[in-house]
Amino acid sequence: MAEMADENVVYVGSKAVMNYVLAVVTQFNNNAKDVVLKARGRAISRAVDVAEIVRNRFMPDIDVKNIGISTEEIATEEGNKINVSAIEISLAKK
Amino acid sequence: MAEMADENVVYVGSKAVMNYVLAVVTQFNNNAKDVVLKARGRAISRAVDVAEIVRNRFMPDIDVKNIGISTEEIATEEGNKINVSAIEISLAKK
Repeated sequence: MAEMADENVVYVGSKAVMNYVLAVVTQFNNNAKDVVLKARGRAISRAVDVAEIVRNRFMPDIDVKNIGISTEEIATEEGNKINVSAIEISLAKK
Repeated sequence: MAEMADENVVYVGSKAVMNYVLAVVTQFNNNAKDVVLKARGRAISRAVDVAEIVRNRFMPDIDVKNIGISTEEIATEEGNKINVSAIEISLAKK
Protein backbone atom coordinates (compact mmCIF):
# COMPACT_ATOMS: atom_id res chain seq x y z
CA MET A 1 0.00 0.00 0.00
CA ALA A 2 1.01 3.60 -0.48
CA GLU A 3 2.13 5.55 2.55
CA MET A 4 -0.55 7.67 4.22
CA ALA A 5 0.83 9.10 7.44
CA ASP A 6 -1.26 12.25 7.82
CA GLU A 7 -4.94 12.35 7.16
CA ASN A 8 -5.70 13.18 3.52
CA VAL A 9 -2.03 13.26 2.59
CA VAL A 10 -0.50 10.80 0.13
CA TYR A 11 3.29 10.74 0.10
CA VAL A 12 4.51 9.80 -3.36
CA GLY A 13 7.77 7.84 -3.40
CA SER A 14 9.40 5.30 -5.65
CA LYS A 15 6.60 2.74 -5.98
CA ALA A 16 4.54 2.26 -9.13
CA VAL A 17 2.23 5.17 -9.97
CA MET A 18 -0.94 3.10 -9.59
CA ASN A 19 -0.25 2.49 -5.88
CA TYR A 20 -0.62 6.21 -5.26
CA VAL A 21 -3.55 6.62 -7.66
CA LEU A 22 -5.39 3.93 -5.68
CA ALA A 23 -4.56 5.68 -2.40
CA VAL A 24 -6.02 8.97 -3.66
CA VAL A 25 -9.16 7.37 -5.11
CA THR A 26 -9.69 5.47 -1.84
CA GLN A 27 -9.47 8.66 0.22
CA PHE A 28 -12.03 10.43 -1.97
CA ASN A 29 -14.31 7.41 -1.85
CA ASN A 30 -14.06 7.59 1.97
CA ASN A 31 -15.55 11.09 1.68
CA ALA A 32 -12.36 13.11 1.89
CA LYS A 33 -13.07 16.60 0.51
CA ASP A 34 -9.49 17.12 -0.56
CA VAL A 35 -6.30 15.08 -0.83
CA VAL A 36 -2.77 16.48 -0.84
CA LEU A 37 -0.02 14.75 -2.83
CA LYS A 38 3.48 15.35 -1.46
CA ALA A 39 6.75 14.35 -3.11
CA ARG A 40 10.43 15.22 -3.09
CA GLY A 41 13.25 14.98 -5.61
CA ARG A 42 12.74 12.62 -8.51
CA ALA A 43 9.35 11.53 -7.17
CA ILE A 44 7.98 14.98 -8.11
CA SER A 45 7.36 13.81 -11.69
CA ARG A 46 5.49 10.79 -10.36
CA ALA A 47 3.27 12.98 -8.16
CA VAL A 48 2.25 14.95 -11.26
CA ASP A 49 1.49 11.65 -13.04
CA VAL A 50 -0.71 10.60 -10.10
CA ALA A 51 -2.70 13.85 -10.19
CA GLU A 52 -3.18 13.66 -13.95
CA ILE A 53 -4.22 10.00 -13.95
CA VAL A 54 -6.68 10.51 -11.09
CA ARG A 55 -8.49 13.38 -12.75
CA ASN A 56 -8.29 12.22 -16.36
CA ARG A 57 -8.96 8.52 -15.99
CA PHE A 58 -10.71 7.82 -12.68
CA MET A 59 -12.39 10.88 -11.17
CA PRO A 60 -13.36 13.58 -13.68
CA ASP A 61 -15.06 15.54 -10.87
CA ILE A 62 -11.67 16.09 -9.18
CA ASP A 63 -9.53 19.08 -10.04
CA VAL A 64 -6.19 20.53 -9.02
CA LYS A 65 -6.90 23.24 -6.45
CA ASN A 66 -3.36 24.40 -5.75
CA ILE A 67 0.26 23.51 -6.45
CA GLY A 68 3.18 24.67 -4.34
CA ILE A 69 6.90 24.05 -4.60
CA SER A 70 9.56 24.45 -1.93
CA THR A 71 13.05 23.43 -0.89
CA GLU A 72 13.63 21.04 2.01
CA GLU A 73 16.90 20.38 3.79
CA ILE A 74 17.53 16.70 4.43
CA ALA A 75 20.39 14.93 6.22
CA THR A 76 22.35 12.33 4.29
CA GLU A 77 23.63 9.10 5.83
CA GLU A 78 27.09 10.68 5.99
CA GLY A 79 25.72 13.50 8.14
CA ASN A 80 25.77 16.17 5.45
CA LYS A 81 22.80 18.37 4.68
CA ILE A 82 21.54 18.69 1.14
CA ASN A 83 18.71 20.67 -0.40
CA VAL A 84 15.98 18.84 -2.23
CA SER A 85 12.98 20.27 -4.08
CA ALA A 86 9.49 19.34 -2.97
CA ILE A 87 5.97 19.67 -4.38
CA GLU A 88 2.50 19.71 -2.87
CA ILE A 89 -0.48 19.16 -5.16
CA SER A 90 -3.91 19.75 -3.60
CA LEU A 91 -6.77 17.86 -5.24
CA ALA A 92 -10.41 18.63 -4.50
CA LYS A 93 -13.89 18.00 -5.81
CA LYS A 94 -15.02 20.59 -8.34
CA MET B 1 22.95 26.42 -24.08
CA ALA B 2 19.47 25.59 -22.93
CA GLU B 3 16.71 25.56 -25.49
CA MET B 4 14.73 28.79 -25.77
CA ALA B 5 12.34 28.49 -28.70
CA ASP B 6 9.57 30.87 -27.62
CA GLU B 7 10.21 34.22 -26.08
CA ASN B 8 10.44 34.01 -22.30
CA VAL B 9 10.01 30.23 -22.30
CA VAL B 10 12.72 27.88 -21.08
CA TYR B 11 12.20 24.23 -22.00
CA VAL B 12 13.74 22.02 -19.34
CA GLY B 13 15.12 18.72 -20.65
CA SER B 14 17.84 16.32 -19.66
CA LYS B 15 20.81 18.68 -19.37
CA ALA B 16 22.37 19.73 -16.08
CA VAL B 17 20.16 21.96 -13.94
CA MET B 18 22.54 24.91 -14.07
CA ASN B 19 22.11 25.24 -17.86
CA TYR B 20 18.45 26.09 -17.31
CA VAL B 21 19.12 28.26 -14.25
CA LEU B 22 21.50 30.33 -16.39
CA ALA B 23 18.90 30.60 -19.16
CA VAL B 24 16.28 31.92 -16.72
CA VAL B 25 18.65 34.39 -15.05
CA THR B 26 19.76 35.64 -18.48
CA GLN B 27 16.18 36.28 -19.54
CA PHE B 28 15.41 38.27 -16.41
CA ASN B 29 18.64 40.23 -16.80
CA ASN B 30 17.49 41.06 -20.34
CA ASN B 31 14.45 42.72 -18.74
CA ALA B 32 11.96 39.90 -19.17
CA LYS B 33 9.07 40.49 -16.76
CA ASP B 34 8.29 36.83 -16.48
CA VAL B 35 9.78 33.53 -17.57
CA VAL B 36 7.90 30.27 -18.05
CA LEU B 37 9.60 26.94 -17.36
CA LYS B 38 8.13 24.02 -19.31
CA ALA B 39 8.98 20.34 -18.85
CA ARG B 40 7.55 16.90 -19.55
CA GLY B 41 7.96 13.48 -17.96
CA ARG B 42 11.00 12.96 -15.80
CA ALA B 43 12.27 16.47 -16.51
CA ILE B 44 9.41 17.83 -14.35
CA SER B 45 11.49 17.32 -11.20
CA ARG B 46 14.35 19.23 -12.81
CA ALA B 47 12.08 22.15 -13.70
CA VAL B 48 11.11 22.43 -10.02
CA ASP B 49 14.81 22.38 -9.10
CA VAL B 50 15.45 25.20 -11.58
CA ALA B 51 12.67 27.37 -10.12
CA GLU B 52 13.85 26.76 -6.55
CA ILE B 53 17.53 27.44 -7.31
CA VAL B 54 16.73 30.64 -9.23
CA ARG B 55 14.67 32.17 -6.45
CA ASN B 56 16.64 30.86 -3.47
CA ARG B 57 20.19 31.28 -4.67
CA PHE B 58 20.32 33.79 -7.52
CA MET B 59 17.29 36.09 -7.65
CA PRO B 60 15.48 36.57 -4.32
CA ASP B 61 13.17 39.12 -5.97
CA ILE B 62 11.71 36.42 -8.22
CA ASP B 63 8.73 34.39 -7.11
CA VAL B 64 6.56 31.60 -8.48
CA LYS B 65 3.46 33.22 -9.94
CA ASN B 66 1.61 30.16 -11.15
CA ILE B 67 2.06 26.41 -11.63
CA GLY B 68 -0.03 24.32 -13.98
CA ILE B 69 0.03 20.63 -14.82
CA SER B 70 -1.41 18.86 -17.82
CA THR B 71 -1.24 15.74 -19.94
CA GLU B 72 0.23 15.78 -23.45
CA GLU B 73 -0.08 13.08 -26.09
CA ILE B 74 3.17 12.34 -27.87
CA ALA B 75 3.95 9.95 -30.71
CA THR B 76 6.63 7.32 -30.16
CA GLU B 77 9.12 6.26 -32.81
CA GLU B 78 7.03 3.12 -33.33
CA GLY B 79 4.01 5.27 -34.22
CA ASN B 80 2.13 4.68 -30.97
CA LYS B 81 0.67 7.49 -28.91
CA ILE B 82 1.44 7.75 -25.23
CA ASN B 83 0.38 10.21 -22.56
CA VAL B 84 3.00 12.16 -20.70
CA SER B 85 2.56 14.62 -17.84
CA ALA B 86 3.74 18.19 -18.27
CA ILE B 87 4.31 21.19 -16.01
CA GLU B 88 4.46 24.94 -16.54
CA ILE B 89 6.02 27.10 -13.85
CA SER B 90 5.63 30.87 -14.28
CA LEU B 91 8.29 32.99 -12.58
CA ALA B 92 7.94 36.75 -12.17
CA LYS B 93 9.41 39.66 -10.27
CA LYS B 94 7.73 40.25 -6.91
